[in-house]
Amino acid sequence: MLSSSQRPVAPELDVIQWFNTPSPLSLEKLRGEVVVLEAFQMLCPGCVSHGLPLAARIHTSFGPNVNVIGIHTVFEHHAAMTPVSLEAFLHEYRIAFPVGVDRPASDGAIPATMERYQLRGTPSMVLIAKDGTIRHQAFGQVDELAVGAALARLIDEEPSHCDIDGGCRPKETL
Amino acid sequence: MLSSSQRPVAPELDVIQWFNTPSPLSLEKLRGEVVVLEAFQMLCPGCVSHGLPLAARIHTSFGPNVNVIGIHTVFEHHAAMTPVSLEAFLHEYRIAFPVGVDRPASDGAIPATMERYQLRGTPSMVLIAKDGTIRHQAFGQVDELAVGAALARLIDEEPSHCDIDGGCRPKETL
Amino acid sequence: MLSSSQRPVAPELDVIQWFNTPSPLSLEKLRGEVVVLEAFQMLCPGCVSHGLPLAARIHTSFGPNVNVIGIHTVFEHHAAMTPVSLEAFLHEYRIAFPVGVDRPASDGAIPATMERYQLRGTPSMVLIAKDGTIRHQAFGQVDELAVGAALARLIDEEPSHCDIDGGCRPKETL
Amino acid sequence: MLSSSQRPVAPELDVIQWFNTPSPLSLEKLRGEVVVLEAFQMLCPGCVSHGLPLAARIHTSFGPNVNVIGIHTVFEHHAAMTPVSLEAFLHEYRIAFPVGVDRPASDGAIPATMERYQLRGTPSMVLIAKDGTIRHQAFGQVDELAVGAALARLIDEEPSHCDIDGGCRPKETL
Repeated sequence: MLSSSQRPVAPELDVIQWFNTPSPLSLEKLRGEVVVLEAFQMLCPGCVSHGLPLAARIHTSFGPNVNVIGIHTVFEHHAAMTPVSLEAFLHEYRIAFPVGVDRPASDGAIPATMERYQLRGTPSMVLIAKDGTIRHQAFGQVDELAVGAALARLIDEEPSHCDIDGGCRPKETL
Repeated sequence: MLSSSQRPVAPELDVIQWFNTPSPLSLEKLRGEVVVLEAFQMLCPGCVSHGLPLAARIHTSFGPNVNVIGIHTVFEHHAAMTPVSLEAFLHEYRIAFPVGVDRPASDGAIPATMERYQLRGTPSMVLIAKDGTIRHQAFGQVDELAVGAALARLIDEEPSHCDIDGGCRPKETL
Repeated sequence: MLSSSQRPVAPELDVIQWFNTPSPLSLEKLRGEVVVLEAFQMLCPGCVSHGLPLAARIHTSFGPNVNVIGIHTVFEHHAAMTPVSLEAFLHEYRIAFPVGVDRPASDGAIPATMERYQLRGTPSMVLIAKDGTIRHQAFGQVDELAVGAALARLIDEEPSHCDIDGGCRPKETL
Repeated sequence: MLSSSQRPVAPELDVIQWFNTPSPLSLEKLRGEVVVLEAFQMLCPGCVSHGLPLAARIHTSFGPNVNVIGIHTVFEHHAAMTPVSLEAFLHEYRIAFPVGVDRPASDGAIPATMERYQLRGTPSMVLIAKDGTIRHQAFGQVDELAVGAALARLIDEEPSHCDIDGGCRPKETL
């Protein structure tokens, strides 16, 4: 867990295409709510065997209290993991939560959102609080009890009455 | 989750022998702390395959914030699951948390603590809050994320400044 | 197990591209050897979770005594499971045995080899004897002990001294 | 696999009590049939998680062609794994094949049958051919495909027309 002073603001998602959502999502629009980002690649075995199943269990277990968002952060085999292939993958694996396609880099392999979050690889899970800050960021397999505990605490947090940019307003106007 | 008014006080344990603890445990002595009771039988396949492993993960993941206590609630095959057999079982399965042997009934099959909690069978998990009340009670397989979330909330609760028997004191003196 | 009179000759593979083999394979060239065909689709969850892992274990366990051949029989999501995507899949999942891409149908969804074998879906496993006939064909999850037993018997069969087309020659000239 | 000249005759079982069989079994009476011995201890985690489940799958998959026999070879925690406890264990884990209790040593820990077979520990699996010789002996986790293959070959062997003691008779009289 990051201490209060170490909490970086979660960078905005840079997504070129969305699945499983009627309209594009943004962290800005989700401010005030808890968000779980699950960064994955459809051909990453660890994502298929444990990363995505855990994200799906969070989606089911916490319902509307947590926004689970998949980010398809392709950093290798780009031609193999196109949005067309991803769409079939999401269908076959019955992924029901929203998934965004991370913007490919104009040069180099690492896509935009993955770069902003400095992720080490896939699968990676990022927990974002109602105040828009990153609270946990984990690569690889994670402790399911600890994730459940962390999410409960984020859900129970009072929404901050201060913008992350510094301005504070009375709670009533939030 | 039980609402506040429905929260029964957790009955005291009735244990005839303890393992993995230098001195006998009681819920009374643990008042003010979170307790997980894992009721099991050493020859119950579901206890071996998922009940006890989850209890062990809670013990590891939450450390001193949660008191995991196994209760050997033998209600069948009594001659087969004696304390002598249990001790070897705990050794072989490397169960590290305290385990108490539920007091056999003088008549009938259901041991004393199991009877007090009206458990449906094994494995059963009971979550007890700092105020000594039962908050969750589940038979069979449980949702690990939900258990993690519930424990976080119990850990974060202020210890009640009221005894469950009715007397209230200023917080400072707790 | 099919009785001797029911044993159909295994139709030839119709493959447009090969991976993990220096030169194209054919059942004709493999006459006299035991062959396991594993028909799969890279985005079929059952293929990933049990069909391909079992094929890989056969490849490892039986070594040169059994020719394990994967056939990518795409019958849905054609644009999503192109040879380019398949190549990355084989790399990421460390599939080491030869894999051929089944020839897409000119009309309709079922590719050529899948059609010839009248496969019900993926994963499907076909065991082919040294004499070129089909001995077992199974859709879905299979009994690993039974597969091991069937392969041992196919390995131990004397190569037939008769062509499947009817001509018989002395064993010495085989 | 042991070569023909290395094949030791399987020592007779030394069992003090049988479960799941109307009358005591002996290898002598089973001469001419394939036998799988599964040596286990009821409180050995590896026996519960993979040794006994594989033995049960062999029992189901090969039916009357293979005699699966469990041997409870207790070499530690003797007071914890008595026949009374074993009986409840077999009931709870739904072990359906015959199980014999290995004769405890008069001095020392290793029971009689385990000593005769020089087993390294539990779980151990021993495959015995129709001619009464040991063909495979394995400690720990085993390759299920290889076991299936080995059993098929043992099932397909002609019963020897020679006694293991040296006497040979015409096949017709066997």
